[in-house]
Formats: sequence, structure tokens, C-alpha cells
Amino acid sequence: MRVEMVLGLEAVLADGTVVSSLNRLLKNNAGYDLKQLFIGTEGTLGVVTRAVLRLRPKPGSTAVALVAVDSFSALPRLLRHVECGFSGALSAFEVMWEDFYRLVTTPPAKGRAPIAYGHAYYVLIEQLGADEESDVAVFERVLGTALEEELIADAVIAKSQAERSAIWSLRDDVAQCMRNAPIFTFDVSLPIVEMETYVADVRSRLSGAWGEKMSLMTFGHMGDCNLHLIVGVGDSEARHAVEAIIYGALEGRSGSVSAEHGIGLEKRSYLPLSRSDTEIALMRQLKRALDPRNILNPGKVFEVSEQST
Amino acid sequence: MRVEMVLGLEAVLADGTVVSSLNRLLKNNAGYDLKQLFIGTEGTLGVVTRAVLRLRPKPGSTAVALVAVDSFSALPRLLRHVECGFSGALSAFEVMWEDFYRLVTTPPAKGRAPIAYGHAYYVLIEQLGADEESDVAVFERVLGTALEEELIADAVIAKSQAERSAIWSLRDDVAQCMRNAPIFTFDVSLPIVEMETYVADVRSRLSGAWGEKMSLMTFGHMGDCNLHLIVGVGDSEARHAVEAIIYGALEGRSGSVSAEHGIGLEKRSYLPLSRSDTEIALMRQLKRALDPRNILNPGKVFEVSEQST
Repeated sequence: MRVEMVLGLEAVLADGTVVSSLNRLLKNNAGYDLKQLFIGTEGTLGVVTRAVLRLRPKPGSTAVALVAVDSFSALPRLLRHVECGFSGALSAFEVMWEDFYRLVTTPPAKGRAPIAYGHAYYVLIEQLGADEESDVAVFERVLGTALEEELIADAVIAKSQAERSAIWSLRDDVAQCMRNAPIFTFDVSLPIVEMETYVADVRSRLSGAWGEKMSLMTFGHMGDCNLHLIVGVGDSEARHAVEAIIYGALEGRSGSVSAEHGIGLEKRSYLPLSRSDTEIALMRQLKRALDPRNILNPGKVFEVSEQST
Repeated sequence: MRVEMVLGLEAVLADGTVVSSLNRLLKNNAGYDLKQLFIGTEGTLGVVTRAVLRLRPKPGSTAVALVAVDSFSALPRLLRHVECGFSGALSAFEVMWEDFYRLVTTPPAKGRAPIAYGHAYYVLIEQLGADEESDVAVFERVLGTALEEELIADAVIAKSQAERSAIWSLRDDVAQCMRNAPIFTFDVSLPIVEMETYVADVRSRLSGAWGEKMSLMTFGHMGDCNLHLIVGVGDSEARHAVEAIIYGALEGRSGSVSAEHGIGLEKRSYLPLSRSDTEIALMRQLKRALDPRNILNPGKVFEVSEQST
């Protein structure tokens, strides 16, 4: 959930107080924005009991393409190109590394490859608009320019809802990664400029440790700086060793150990890789002020005592 | 500044600690979103010393129109119509009540009226896009449909940068309100469905108190639920009496005494009109936890002691 989709919240505090902050206004600067205490804090500062969400009109048209890209450096340029070209109507920019693309287009997967293998990256691009006819024209023109400028090497534009669904079902067929089970899944974010070396670095460290037993599947919402990595090393006991590589390689790259899924218990010991001691101390200070007896989801995100994180 | 434009902040806390939370990632769920403690809290929880802002590409095209609307009920339908029709590229929906429109189009104002008087509302509509040719086509088609559906009574579409500037300069010529000086200016927000009766209610109460000496100029960013009211009653001492009317009429309408400009000292006594006792108590709790000696912008937004707000 994007923060800007939440307009208001009601929450129950540790002392039982119900704070109703069910704002419905897009602009409201009357005092502190209290809902932010409860968004993304994993129930450690209060229990959310109601929410006001911003609704938007259902789009009247959807255009989807799958494109092939040969170099990483073309990806951010392509992202910028379609962001500008679609005037804010870009709704998905889902990058699949080639090994993920091969996995989801070969049996027993049901999907078939709309574009030949051999490219480094495959990107699902979606535009949500208002008017089918004019939107399709913009979509084709913008992708056409990308082809002329050699940002993309090949492209398939879906011509029907069935074709749109077929392209999305490739990206969504993450379950194919179970072919490499046991697997460990990750949800990190990092600046786009760091992604290429990050993935190469992770691949090299994993190969160094597990050789050919290693599989690394990578895909992500690049527009949001968010990558998902799914790792198999043939050993269900190797989680901590794999985590050390995935999270360790974020250091020095301004990355986050959690893009979407929070910290909980599982990533608690890695929080200091993404947040400074001062930041974590301030989080603790908030937690102590609002939940002095540590009864709300205790132990999640961080330990309240400073001795252990 | 919209919250979603701020990616990261650095702030100095009351105890001198510098908290660097200079996140650059669009998605980051690693622990609490600390920047929210400092956005919109008017320096009462920390002093912002650095900020990371989200930049977006400069739009390639701008289309502007001024349209006339005869009934309030058509305004939210028109807003929805252009929001959908422009597929997210709507960048301004600035409603001017007729008296404001007359004021800024009659000498000594330099602006002239592109559309005749006699309509209840005049709306500046702006679309930011990527491609001049296709955007203009969409802009004209969407406004054409609005005309056919009788959402708008008349329209002028700017054909040049000079015409775009001329339309914007009407909306921006708020200084004309000084012709009614002494004046008091307000910045409120409320649900769009409440706006018509709110303005009528305010007008009626002001007229009841000051008769023909009263002037009320109204315009606003309706897409953001935000109205500006500029009131003259011929008496520079009447601020509190006028405030009581403007803010009082927000009660029962889920309105906010401050859409954009914060609370500070001036609106402090009206904060309870927009926020519940429980909300204000939670704000105080945060303030006490982060600034126990009350040294950061003391007295702004609310008094820390519960005896006085």
C-alpha cells in the first residue's frame, strides 16, 4: 500500500485509547499527521482498527507490452522514456532477468515465450489510461521511439485481454521458482544505478559458496527501486548464510533490507544494515513513549532494550 | 509540499542528536518512517536540516482552459470527468467563485474576462503531458464531451503560452483582494460535497453581521479539497469575529482549519475544531517524548500543558 493511498486511520493505543484520525481530506495541515505513527510500524505503536483509503476512478483502457533489453544501462533510460511518454499513466515496469524469464516460459510452466531467449532483460510495461484509441496510439508511438533509439531490442504489444493476461501471467508465475526448492525469497530495494552490480555481486558470492547447486531468480518493480530475489542452494538449512550474502551486498549501496514486506522478526537482526544507530534509537524512543509496557507486538522490528537488536 | 515528494530528511532533535534519514528509495519498509515526525510538525519535534526530494521529468506539453460552470453540483462531476479523461495528467483544477472572477477581470486589475460574466463558477483546468499534439487532442476532446454533457456552459482553450499565462494570471491576481482592505485570508479544506453550503453559510453569517460592508472572495484547489476565502468587513479589528464564522462553519462538515499553511500561533485556538481531544493528547505525548524541555518552537500548534490549548 502506498502511503499516499491512506487518508486517515483509527487505531487503539497501548493504554486502550481509541484515536480516531479518520481524515478524508487530501490536504490537511491541522496539527501532526498521526496516521503516520501506524502506517508501516507493524502494530508496534497501535492496532489499526479502521482506515480511510483514497479511491481513484477505474481506468478506461489498459495497454501491456513485453520488451527485450540487452544492457542494464538501457533500463533506467527506458523507464524514464516511458514515464515521460505516458504522461503519468505508466502503471507497471516489471523487469525480469533472463533466467527468471526462461524459468517461467519452459515446461512444466504453462507460459510460452512471446520473445526469443538471448536478451539480458525482459520488461513488462503497462499503461493505464482513459481512452482506448488514443492511449494505444501513444503506447505504440512511445515504444516505437524506444525501438528506434535502440533502448529496446524487441517488443510484443498485447492485442487483446487474453494476450495482456498471458504476459502478466509470466511475471506472476513466481511459483515456478519452487522447481529449485528449497528456496529463500527476498524483497530488497536499492537505487537503480546500483542494481546491476548488486545482482552480479550476489550471484558471484552465491556461486562461490555453492557452485552449480545455486539458482538465483531476479525480478522487480524497477520503477519503485524494488527487487525480488529467489535463491536456491540445495540446502534448506542455508538461510542465514544466504541472507548474509543478500543483505550484506546491500551495504554501501544505500539499500533497504525490506522494500515492501516489513521487518517483523525475520529481518530484525539486519535492520542496522539499512538504518543507523541514531535512527533505531529514535524508533525505540517512540516505542517507549507510546507503549511503555511493551505489550504491542513485542519484539517485532527491534528489541526495545538497547542491549540487543 | 505533498508528503509523497519527500523521500528522506535529516533533522536535529531537542537533545542535539542529528538523525539522518536521507532515504532515496521509493519503497523502503525497514523500520519506522521517521521523516513523518518532521513533515508538517512545524519544527516542534526537530529542526529539518536536509531533505531528499523526489524529482520528476519536466512535462513536454501544457494545456490550459478556462471554463464556466453554472451549478455547484456540476463541479465534482466535471472534476471526475477530467481526472478520468486526462489519465492522471490533470495538474490544476482551480475554481473561482464569480465574485472573485469579476474582481480580477475589472480595472484596476490588468486582466480581462475571456468568458462573459453571469456564470456561478469559473474553473482553470490544466493538463501536463508529454506530447503537444496528442495531448491537445485529448484535452479538446475531453472538454468537448463536458460541453456536450452540459457539465460546462462555456470554455476558452488557450492557444499559446501568452494565452495560458493570461488565464493563470487571473487566478494568481489575489492581490486585487486588497481593494477590499482591510482583509483577512483563510485556508481551509473540507469535503467537496460540503463546499457549496459551507460558502453559502459563511456568506450569510458575514452578511448578517456586517451587511453591505462585507466582501467574500472565494477560490480554491478543488481537487485537493482546499478553499481560500478572503474576507473584508471594513474593520481591521474584526479578525476574531470573522474567524469565529469561517472556522465555526467548518464544524459538522469534517473540515480542517488549515489545508496548507499549518497552525502556528494564529490558528492554535481553533485546532480543536478539526482534531479531537484524543488526537491532540497524542500530539502532546509525542511532543513531550521528543522535546521534554519544550525548547523546539515552543507554543506552536498547541500548548504542551493540557490546561490551555
